[in-house]
Amino acid sequence: MAKLTILGNSAALPANNRKLSAHLFEIDGHSLLFDCGEGTQFQLINFKKSLLKISKIFITHLHGDHFYGLPGLLSTMSMLNREKAIDIYGPKGLMEFLHAINEVSKSEPSFKQRIHIVDVENKQFLCEEKGFKVYAFPLFHSVASFGYLVQQKEFKLNIKKSFVHNNDIPIKWFQRIKSGEDYIDNSGTVFLNKDIAEQLHSPISYAYCTDTGYFPQIADYINAVTLLYHETTFLNSEKEDAIAKKHSTAEDAANIAKLSNANNLIIGHFSARYSDLNDFLKEASPIFPNTIIATEGLEIDL
Amino acid sequence: MAKLTILGNSAALPANNRKLSAHLFEIDGHSLLFDCGEGTQFQLINFKKSLLKISKIFITHLHGDHFYGLPGLLSTMSMLNREKAIDIYGPKGLMEFLHAINEVSKSEPSFKQRIHIVDVENKQFLCEEKGFKVYAFPLFHSVASFGYLVQQKEFKLNIKKSFVHNNDIPIKWFQRIKSGEDYIDNSGTVFLNKDIAEQLHSPISYAYCTDTGYFPQIADYINAVTLLYHETTFLNSEKEDAIAKKHSTAEDAANIAKLSNANNLIIGHFSARYSDLNDFLKEASPIFPNTIIATEGLEIDL
Repeated sequence: MAKLTILGNSAALPANNRKLSAHLFEIDGHSLLFDCGEGTQFQLINFKKSLLKISKIFITHLHGDHFYGLPGLLSTMSMLNREKAIDIYGPKGLMEFLHAINEVSKSEPSFKQRIHIVDVENKQFLCEEKGFKVYAFPLFHSVASFGYLVQQKEFKLNIKKSFVHNNDIPIKWFQRIKSGEDYIDNSGTVFLNKDIAEQLHSPISYAYCTDTGYFPQIADYINAVTLLYHETTFLNSEKEDAIAKKHSTAEDAANIAKLSNANNLIIGHFSARYSDLNDFLKEASPIFPNTIIATEGLEIDL
Repeated sequence: MAKLTILGNSAALPANNRKLSAHLFEIDGHSLLFDCGEGTQFQLINFKKSLLKISKIFITHLHGDHFYGLPGLLSTMSMLNREKAIDIYGPKGLMEFLHAINEVSKSEPSFKQRIHIVDVENKQFLCEEKGFKVYAFPLFHSVASFGYLVQQKEFKLNIKKSFVHNNDIPIKWFQRIKSGEDYIDNSGTVFLNKDIAEQLHSPISYAYCTDTGYFPQIADYINAVTLLYHETTFLNSEKEDAIAKKHSTAEDAANIAKLSNANNLIIGHFSARYSDLNDFLKEASPIFPNTIIATEGLEIDL
């Protein structure tokens, strides 16, 4: 269905053998990259992920630990003779940055880089593919920072096997029932769609929220999300730092997950000062039990 | 005396678990960084080298694999509250690149970054410290590319122990003899300096030459160098590629070492197409026996 791979979970600077922010989300034949800290291309290679399959890149904000890996990744794609265009979404300034890089490196990429500036004050639709849509929404940080939500589209309905077995449904009716219509048989009997069809899989969703201070509005943007990634730069013992720097604590992240009615919470973007990540789990779990640590290399199937 | 540490040896893109170009040369209390490919800060941390001790950075040319690690390294130095100014040497365009990065990241570094543009047509003095001088010289590549030579200064002479032991030299004469003067004793006897003083250590030198095609002029710039690093992107079987892309083969590098009367040759910047690096050694050694492979993490004491 979909798979999330954690590429980096360190805040600001590499420490304790942790790498910088990047998540790869594979869905419906697409590879979506969220943030691209320095070394992201190495992590993709480490975890045997194809660089060329990445079709869209979403940058949350323009602090170096979230986008300094872009030039190298794009340059490597070019050296691998990528032809397929790539879509890159991110805040104002991203275009100037990529132009400056290409200018100074005198490089002409082998593929088209379509840059889309994200500048939203509310949840806003960004793009869609056959199986999913992506939305952006504002976060609360020291510079413009945006969260992203991947929402899988509704699946076509399946006609219940028992009903197919016991009724002689004309072929022309199959698609109509799968599209939600009630079924009327030759005798005029009406079978309500909800009684004869069902959705075998619920659409999943994934939200990527970093960097941000505690910002309860997020819950409105991602209500009932399947998997929420929320930054936890600090523990509650450093709450003052978190407030001053517009970052979140593990408690903050758990509260956002609870408010959002999320199914699962994954936490990362840990400050270099912490070597033991279990303390984050200890702080978040009492508030939101379905919490896990974004360990690098971790793959989560949705 | 001096120590070279290899941080990365891969050409163009990371492959076969090899990282991008960077050498750390520690001499006389200074840490000099040559090139700064993406991930250089991770390699410095891996090999337990202090980021804050780096006092000068030398960039050979503006292809991404040689300088895309600069923004992250400088940003981390800033987050570690570096105060000491840093000197960065490199080709035209470097200043615009660093300004664009600071502009888009809205970052104000915690320390002064002094950028020195290198644009030389011959060997030219760049800078000096108490114990060494650094020179730049042109290489031969598809964009402006410069080699660097670190030349340790001459040491003061030592008076031979046997002479000190057998003669009653007045204290005021010690510095004069160490500075190269002949010694005249009370009886008027002249002792030639070369007979009574000696240099216990020869000054060492280190040259960093990448990227470049075969360019015999290099030999004039680095004559009798102690340790020559020369790129070997290709093997001789890909000589045509080497010529077309203005890179060198292992044979080219060995020939430059021979022409330069170098003591030792270290080769790196291997194309991703090669997984077995021993072939490079097999090609270079018959021409220049004192050749070694620039394995990442290798430390060489000079």
